Amino acid sequence: MTYCVGLQLNRGLVFLSDTRTNAGVDNISTYRKLHTWEVPGERAMVLMTAGNLATTQAVVSLLDERNLAPNDRSPSLLTAPSMFQAARLIGQTLREVILEQTHGGPQAASTTFNATMIFGGQVAGSPPRLYMIYPEGNFVEAQIDTPFFQIGETKYGRPILVRAYDPEMPFEQAVKLLMVSFDSTIRANLSVGAPLDLQIYEGDSLMLGKSRRIEETDSDFAAISDGWSDALRTAFHSLPDVTL
Amino acid sequence: MTYCVGLQLNRGLVFLSDTRTNAGVDNISTYRKLHTWEVPGERAMVLMTAGNLATTQAVVSLLDERNLAPNDRSPSLLTAPSMFQAARLIGQTLREVILEQTHGGPQAASTTFNATMIFGGQVAGSPPRLYMIYPEGNFVEAQIDTPFFQIGETKYGRPILVRAYDPEMPFEQAVKLLMVSFDSTIRANLSVGAPLDLQIYEGDSLMLGKSRRIEETDSDFAAISDGWSDALRTAFHSLPDVTL
Repeated sequence: MTYCVGLQLNRGLVFLSDTRTNAGVDNISTYRKLHTWEVPGERAMVLMTAGNLATTQAVVSLLDERNLAPNDRSPSLLTAPSMFQAARLIGQTLREVILEQTHGGPQAASTTFNATMIFGGQVAGSPPRLYMIYPEGNFVEAQIDTPFFQIGETKYGRPILVRAYDPEMPFEQAVKLLMVSFDSTIRANLSVGAPLDLQIYEGDSLMLGKSRRIEETDSDFAAISDGWSDALRTAFHSLPDVTL
Repeated sequence: MTYCVGLQLNRGLVFLSDTRTNAGVDNISTYRKLHTWEVPGERAMVLMTAGNLATTQAVVSLLDERNLAPNDRSPSLLTAPSMFQAARLIGQTLREVILEQTHGGPQAASTTFNATMIFGGQVAGSPPRLYMIYPEGNFVEAQIDTPFFQIGETKYGRPILVRAYDPEMPFEQAVKLLMVSFDSTIRANLSVGAPLDLQIYEGDSLMLGKSRRIEETDSDFAAISDGWSDALRTAFHSLPDVTL
């Protein structure tokens, strides 16, 4: 499995991804699932991937190759005129890779070769954008009612996101929120695991913001992981008693 | 979907079940999924079901019929000499119903006719027991390391159970814990819904304890549902800040 969250804030975007891949519980590895591109002052883009690793690696390789040799017919991420066009390019590439691996077989979403992606960032001239891209190549954009996207093992970490998210949050708080969400998921599902990759994008900066690899031994993550159990128990005991 | 939890405490057992069934999101109904049997002073049993409604209703009907006309060859729930034997009977009945509906086709667990059950209670002479029964008819028992079972949509409500459960809890607190777990699940998955059915079994009482149908408008449930958002946000803000 995998767990990745992209969060839209008034100040910008925050991305957090795990790095565990597995083919059965007896075969796990660490792979980076968070990829970035930038032309400082002009564009900054972040892509997180969940699903078949061969598919997602092929998509990222094809995107990188196009960046080296862009042409008018198939623009690259570095030349796409908008985030929307960049998302279309990623969606098309994803769909093509899946179709190739299934030899035009079943629908993209129903094969084991499928993958889902979160794509966000900004191209000069428009505000920051955050998209969720499906195996069929289509995509949806985050909006005020749905200000974040999750891919992979989304359920364990969702309740806290739904309840504590606030668009006005500073980045420090958003990272704390994501750490809590990831901690709940990592404790529950062996196929999600540290280290985590964090990437921040500050709105209108047009360059990648702070990034960090959060190891299992990271002192911030450990403090939150330890503190959350106590905080949750305190919260639970603060609720009114039930009469039977 | 469905959400049911059976919790083993030092004082006894607590069962909570939702009542929503669905065949697609445009076809939902309310059915009781929590069933009880008792011979006061001698035995008390609780069964909660998730999965195909035709299967689970058939199983409960067959168990009820056997109670009316027990024989030595196939003992009934009301005559089984132990909870273990009662769980075997339920498991066998479940497996037979599924096999009948699949006409001996694929493995029980892989058909759409499958079902999973939580079964608990006490028969005089042994301590209270709590089992999870699988579509294949086999089952596992709760132990100190795994003191509760969930069936149906288990993920959203799991983190709080894992963190706030304490075997020493009084029943009032356990019900509060289950209400929080159900509230998180109901908010996240449309196919889990109120009213909820609560059943308590006090250890060594050998009779069913308090039971209650918790409607959506139940004042305890509403207080917990409202209070939990605030409590969770307070808990979140009490965590140490992250430095970027």
